[in-house]
Amino acid sequence: MGQWPVDGLPSSVVSKLTDVPKRILIGRALRSDRLGETLLPKRIALPVFASDPLSSVAYAPGEVLLVLSIAGVSAYHFSPWIAVAVVVLMFTVVASYRQNVHAYPSGGGDYEVATTNLGPKAGLTVASALLVDYVLTVAVSIASGIENLGSAIPFVVEHKVLCAVAVIVLLTLMNLRGVKESGKLFAIPTYVFVGGVFVMIAWGAFRGLVLGDTMRAPTAAFEIKAEHQGLAGFALVFLLLRAFSSGCAALTGVEAISNGVPAFRKPKSKNAATTLALMGGLAVTMFCGIIALAMTTKVRMAENPATDLIRGGHPLGSGYVQNPVISQVAEAVFGKGSFLFVVLAAATALVLFLAANTAYNGFPLLGSILAQDRYLPRQLHTRGDRLAFSNGIVLLAGAATLLTVLYGADSTRLIQLYIVGVFVSFTLSQTGMVRHWNRHLAVEKDPGKRSHMIRSRAINAFGAFFTGLVLVVVLVTKFTHGAWVALLGMCIFYATMTAIRKHYDGVAEEIAAPEEPDDDDLVRPSRVHSVVLISKIHRPTLRALAYAKLMRSDTLEALTVNVDAAETKALREEWERRGIDVPLKVLDSPYREVTRPVIEYVKSLRKESPRDAVSVIIPEYVVGHWYEHLLHNQSALRLKGRLLFTPGVMVTSVPYQLASSEAAKLRARKRQEWSAPGAVRRGPAVERPKQPSAAKD
Amino acid sequence: MGQWPVDGLPSSVVSKLTDVPKRILIGRALRSDRLGETLLPKRIALPVFASDPLSSVAYAPGEVLLVLSIAGVSAYHFSPWIAVAVVVLMFTVVASYRQNVHAYPSGGGDYEVATTNLGPKAGLTVASALLVDYVLTVAVSIASGIENLGSAIPFVVEHKVLCAVAVIVLLTLMNLRGVKESGKLFAIPTYVFVGGVFVMIAWGAFRGLVLGDTMRAPTAAFEIKAEHQGLAGFALVFLLLRAFSSGCAALTGVEAISNGVPAFRKPKSKNAATTLALMGGLAVTMFCGIIALAMTTKVRMAENPATDLIRGGHPLGSGYVQNPVISQVAEAVFGKGSFLFVVLAAATALVLFLAANTAYNGFPLLGSILAQDRYLPRQLHTRGDRLAFSNGIVLLAGAATLLTVLYGADSTRLIQLYIVGVFVSFTLSQTGMVRHWNRHLAVEKDPGKRSHMIRSRAINAFGAFFTGLVLVVVLVTKFTHGAWVALLGMCIFYATMTAIRKHYDGVAEEIAAPEEPDDDDLVRPSRVHSVVLISKIHRPTLRALAYAKLMRSDTLEALTVNVDAAETKALREEWERRGIDVPLKVLDSPYREVTRPVIEYVKSLRKESPRDAVSVIIPEYVVGHWYEHLLHNQSALRLKGRLLFTPGVMVTSVPYQLASSEAAKLRARKRQEWSAPGAVRRGPAVERPKQPSAAKD
Repeated sequence: MGQWPVDGLPSSVVSKLTDVPKRILIGRALRSDRLGETLLPKRIALPVFASDPLSSVAYAPGEVLLVLSIAGVSAYHFSPWIAVAVVVLMFTVVASYRQNVHAYPSGGGDYEVATTNLGPKAGLTVASALLVDYVLTVAVSIASGIENLGSAIPFVVEHKVLCAVAVIVLLTLMNLRGVKESGKLFAIPTYVFVGGVFVMIAWGAFRGLVLGDTMRAPTAAFEIKAEHQGLAGFALVFLLLRAFSSGCAALTGVEAISNGVPAFRKPKSKNAATTLALMGGLAVTMFCGIIALAMTTKVRMAENPATDLIRGGHPLGSGYVQNPVISQVAEAVFGKGSFLFVVLAAATALVLFLAANTAYNGFPLLGSILAQDRYLPRQLHTRGDRLAFSNGIVLLAGAATLLTVLYGADSTRLIQLYIVGVFVSFTLSQTGMVRHWNRHLAVEKDPGKRSHMIRSRAINAFGAFFTGLVLVVVLVTKFTHGAWVALLGMCIFYATMTAIRKHYDGVAEEIAAPEEPDDDDLVRPSRVHSVVLISKIHRPTLRALAYAKLMRSDTLEALTVNVDAAETKALREEWERRGIDVPLKVLDSPYREVTRPVIEYVKSLRKESPRDAVSVIIPEYVVGHWYEHLLHNQSALRLKGRLLFTPGVMVTSVPYQLASSEAAKLRARKRQEWSAPGAVRRGPAVERPKQPSAAKD
Repeated sequence: MGQWPVDGLPSSVVSKLTDVPKRILIGRALRSDRLGETLLPKRIALPVFASDPLSSVAYAPGEVLLVLSIAGVSAYHFSPWIAVAVVVLMFTVVASYRQNVHAYPSGGGDYEVATTNLGPKAGLTVASALLVDYVLTVAVSIASGIENLGSAIPFVVEHKVLCAVAVIVLLTLMNLRGVKESGKLFAIPTYVFVGGVFVMIAWGAFRGLVLGDTMRAPTAAFEIKAEHQGLAGFALVFLLLRAFSSGCAALTGVEAISNGVPAFRKPKSKNAATTLALMGGLAVTMFCGIIALAMTTKVRMAENPATDLIRGGHPLGSGYVQNPVISQVAEAVFGKGSFLFVVLAAATALVLFLAANTAYNGFPLLGSILAQDRYLPRQLHTRGDRLAFSNGIVLLAGAATLLTVLYGADSTRLIQLYIVGVFVSFTLSQTGMVRHWNRHLAVEKDPGKRSHMIRSRAINAFGAFFTGLVLVVVLVTKFTHGAWVALLGMCIFYATMTAIRKHYDGVAEEIAAPEEPDDDDLVRPSRVHSVVLISKIHRPTLRALAYAKLMRSDTLEALTVNVDAAETKALREEWERRGIDVPLKVLDSPYREVTRPVIEYVKSLRKESPRDAVSVIIPEYVVGHWYEHLLHNQSALRLKGRLLFTPGVMVTSVPYQLASSEAAKLRARKRQEWSAPGAVRRGPAVERPKQPSAAKD
């Protein structure tokens, strides 16, 4: 799953790999009018957007078999029917999203479709679901990637949690550092993975059908102890529905393309729709091929392999590691340890890590859209802003690490949480699309266009119905298995974002400018009294005095706090000697405080003449390192903090750049040149269409 | 040890206990001229200042026996001689500090005496030693307190580290919260402790000498396996010196009174000197009495009780808990579990915790003096400032906790680190006093005063010589036992403080105002161009515009960044409609950034007319909670941070107080009323005498 998936590797690697995509690399620095040439052709767009949905075939078939095994190995014969149901669902979802792509060529994600057509609450629900799913994309993909890698390198599975967390940390650091991306980086592992799976299916079919070989999975000889023998009636239906729910994990990430339309070459919508269809076709073929091979090679998987898998009459025990279906099948077809087996395991793991990486871009980007709609702190709304990006990444990585550790990096247990969010957003988005067509049908007269719209509406309505049904199935069959955790996460996001929006709305109301001048305007000050804070005579204070004079306020005085009589005397004398033509006022401070006497003096000024504003001018040092900052300006900062609470006061900082500030300037410039990963698939920066519901400021 | 010791309990307890000291409680709010009545009489001053030195007799005698036990129980007969040496040293130190008290009635601590007379390097050495010793005061006192409490409550000793850390956390929270203090709070446990020890000594003497009872300590029947049998010559001398070093732990904290002179009633110096003599007399008597009782009741202690204490031919093993000497003696004299035994154990523990608490005031106060001399961040120099106080407390508690955990809350192992710092400051302070008298003798003509000074100089010279000798002995005998850790700590403090001072000196030089106008003044701006940042028209921006107009700069314009075309259009229209008579400039921002376009615009203004200053006026929201702050002003803050690096720019915040800011105002007022613990013994706030070496700003 992943709305705006993306990839990244250190730029040194990139520069070796890239050739054509080199122009893409510098896309971010281009102006909008020159961005056309950096758009993605379909052959690159497919791997860029499809690493997430395609990678899910690495774990979805196994989950189906796992659930079926509860009713014993005999239930495995239901698996083709479940595959058929998943295929039908996949075609439905792909067909539905092709409508989204045509209707929202601007790349409106599920959040926007739901907000625009169903109102802000539905939109916020989708957003909460997507945020939870980004976290789970990271957790599930990495756990599954580790398991696939572990089928080739046992060490990795023996230290599963450790390795999974290490991959999370690595991805986090890469994304925090800000890596430029290239389409080829996605293309190579994705095509190797897809190619490998197709070669496996073809070679398996050839060996089985033509050569008549008997291929055996490493687990073929095991028996399965059914947890519920001879299930029938409702219980069996329930189990099949649960298996189907697990198989639906193959659909995660399908909606990604609908967000990335602006990144496609023209005709954008058509190319995106074609890519979507291609992706659906590939995913379905791979999913069914793997299930078929698993049946042929007699793969045996159980929910609790330690107790339910039997060899020679004895359970296998807790030492047994259950490898993923795809790797068991590959072992049966290619042979254990063979070159192709290892390549496929590596490509599978890499594609899964790429899928996890997509969430690292989707999460902050969705955050920035939510911030624009004032559901998240306003400062996150700058696109590609490093701070916004970092906050999002750290939050995502923290949540994913927590889940990984809590669930022991076990992809099967994590998947129980996964699909809820996906189907919440599918259902609401498709329902929104139905409303969208209704709205357009109400005004459209052209019969050709109308029939087209009616067809689209039918597809979306069926999509909404089917995905809604699946959502109910998922909720019913998985609630106690972990789906409640995902729902809880969604509620937390929803409540937080609602509270933030409420706060912003309250403030907006409080500060709204009146049409007619009111009380507030009547007491508007008529004169300004400037006060320059002086500790000692040096360049910074002299500069502050010079600037204060330039401002020509009605009255101007210098102010110092007497914390040391000798120093104050020396200051007075130097003031006289230099002939500074600003009166110097000295405040007493028996307890060597600075803040309190100044605040009290300012308040007394305000009391004397309530219609005057007071301008407090503070000389400030600008230094280059954070630890130097600890050594300077702290009193000034605290004083400023307190002064801001006093009405009728404005506070001016007159900076004095110390030599060491040059270093910080350079760092700031470097930070400014930082480029957020994920730019490739977002496409050129375009104005988001204004939403009727979202009043911004 | 403890320079400015102090106490504190929640004020609810205080209000029940206090009667006379009630006036002390409100001392801090009084003006200097009315503070006379809050000064301490001798009967309160003694316990207030002496909890630290008196409490050390709870562990010092035991340490002597421990070291002697290395040569077997026969070496115990040297203990009276070691006691005599400690007594002589105690008298020397007390006599020396009586000179300090007369010479520095302002309460100049060892740091000031050393700085004034021996130069800043010696002063900084003393300061580093004192800072390390504050940490050790906390660690040693609490470890010893836990051990004494454990002799009555075994649970406490069984969870020694946990309990010790809990006491540190408790003291830390109490001090962070800011508790008012009263002399009586010190008086009660200290007098109970002193009284208890004297009753024990008297009752022991009476039982032994008059009744002829044979009192036996619980360990009297044990044998000691000597680690080195039949030590003689140099090895024996070395061991005796080591035992003496350990006994010197009794001297920690003696210097506290010399820092507290201003807190005494008049005649301050005379009263302080008398109190010092009283304290010395009490400490010496208690120390000798406990050693004598320990010899009489045949207390047996060993460095490694598990292996070196033998009962019936077998070592006691690791389950044995060695109780402190004072509790073993109390058990022998009063009987185990008797009322007086429990009272003494409780009073001992309480006095030791009070002693630890003194460091919580001494550490931040020394920090504030060091900050005044620019060895620590300048903002720490405000007396009684909560921030300075909190930083110091947290640093102290962290270091003490670290030591407690590392050394397993074992007072014997911690004491090895302890005395180095004390004797470094004793020696340097007394050497400084010799210089002090030399300086005064060079100008003094009055023969009476001269002979007085010569006598004082002789006492201080002997003190310097003797404490210096002890310092060498301590370093030689304890270096490998842990004194190196204390020395390392001193070096770290010394290096850090030197680096900070160097930084401040460098900055002071960089910003020094030239006597004649130089290049910097020639490019002083002649005009000012004001820019008001506008996001939207609301009360805060209208206020900022109104204030900007008041300032009458040469030119004034409003500036907005176009991150959303529709919003910008609406803003322009409202600007027109309201007829705001300030030109509105719109900056484009294709990537929805705010900071970069503004910075670039300001730079271009500066480039166009380099002689003009630019005044950037930013409307700011003032909110009440930190989490609200996360939702506002972040862009403004970042922009301000970047603007300060641009020369020729000043930045003005025009605050708009939201309704929620009232809460913050109340909190700030409450914080202002916070009173730092430790005010009682510091005496009224007086100006510190100007030091020749310390150039402040």
